[in-house]
Amino acid sequence: MSDQTQLTDLPLHELLERLGSSDPVPGGGSAAALAGAMGAALVAMVAELTIGRPGYAEHEETIRKLRFDALDRRTELLDLAQQDADAYDVVVRARHLPKESDAERAARSSALEAAMLDAARIPLRAAVVASEVLDLAERIAPIGNRNAASDAGVAAQLAAAGLRGALLNVRINLPYLAPDEPMRASAPAEIARLEALAAKGEHAALAAVDARLAAP
Amino acid sequence: MSDQTQLTDLPLHELLERLGSSDPVPGGGSAAALAGAMGAALVAMVAELTIGRPGYAEHEETIRKLRFDALDRRTELLDLAQQDADAYDVVVRARHLPKESDAERAARSSALEAAMLDAARIPLRAAVVASEVLDLAERIAPIGNRNAASDAGVAAQLAAAGLRGALLNVRINLPYLAPDEPMRASAPAEIARLEALAAKGEHAALAAVDARLAAP
Repeated sequence: MSDQTQLTDLPLHELLERLGSSDPVPGGGSAAALAGAMGAALVAMVAELTIGRPGYAEHEETIRKLRFDALDRRTELLDLAQQDADAYDVVVRARHLPKESDAERAARSSALEAAMLDAARIPLRAAVVASEVLDLAERIAPIGNRNAASDAGVAAQLAAAGLRGALLNVRINLPYLAPDEPMRASAPAEIARLEALAAKGEHAALAAVDARLAAP
Repeated sequence: MSDQTQLTDLPLHELLERLGSSDPVPGGGSAAALAGAMGAALVAMVAELTIGRPGYAEHEETIRKLRFDALDRRTELLDLAQQDADAYDVVVRARHLPKESDAERAARSSALEAAMLDAARIPLRAAVVASEVLDLAERIAPIGNRNAASDAGVAAQLAAAGLRGALLNVRINLPYLAPDEPMRASAPAEIARLEALAAKGEHAALAAVDARLAAP
């Protein structure tokens, strides 16, 4: 995305055109973060539709806190979508560096390793934040406005998809890190931990949504 | 979304603000369709990054067809996101109709049933189209550009999340349809069929992505 347009300023139809273009930026990493951001926004909407309603006064304080946290995660994931695009742009540029001489090859290789570290770190952060969105969706599903139960469920599904999608982006970039980069060793356990959170959180959130849809 | 702005013209940051606002429109139905549209866009990107590359010439024709189909589904899902917002806007307006007299209550009830039929039909169509996107992701994952394997995986996850999210929107609106509306009887089997497709397609696509990430 060589013209450096900010993703968040793009009209939606143009974002989708760019996602589908032959330019690898923005790609799956940004799309995964955006899915998480949409999930966070939906948690905030469910909270908004619950706060101040007499039937839900019991959980008012909890729901205000969930709303606050959801808006915070929405902002961070939107920012991570941009960071992912920027980081992958640097990767693409590093790949195009000359590799004629030994010196050029060495310079290209270290530029690529540095770029790949960001391209792995950023989606790992996105996966962590998406796991927090999934947790917020799981917590609001049983206590939020019943008429918005499906929105809490969609939030959970988008957060889980964003989480798992971000992890795929970590995994594809990991083999290109410098051999002595500590993240090579630490990432697999963190990936497994986050994958387990995705499965557990999605199951719990959807069970809560199912219970509310079954008894409208 | 009373000002009738087209969702696709909104800058991304504003879309996310509206998704998270106290206005129930746009809501989870639109977000689910948009997730599917992002998935479709990513399938098209993987195809673009594969077409014309010598190492992938064997599947060129298949991949051109997958690209064409993905762009078609992207357009339809973007349109369905808008239709979902418009339909839910009509539901919200019907809910606000007066209900003082018997005549008013009868008019409100039939307006609401008519509005709910669209609010159930549109996400059901979105679920069908998202299932097609999932199928495209499953088909491109093993044969597309290996460097974009994670993008095919994100496409599958977004399509599956969009599919399941759309079905939640069908399910929450179904109880409000007219008692003699045929969709009441036909929807449960269709929902079960699409849920099975989501599970099967997601599993197959991610197995293909895993195989490619394991052998880079």
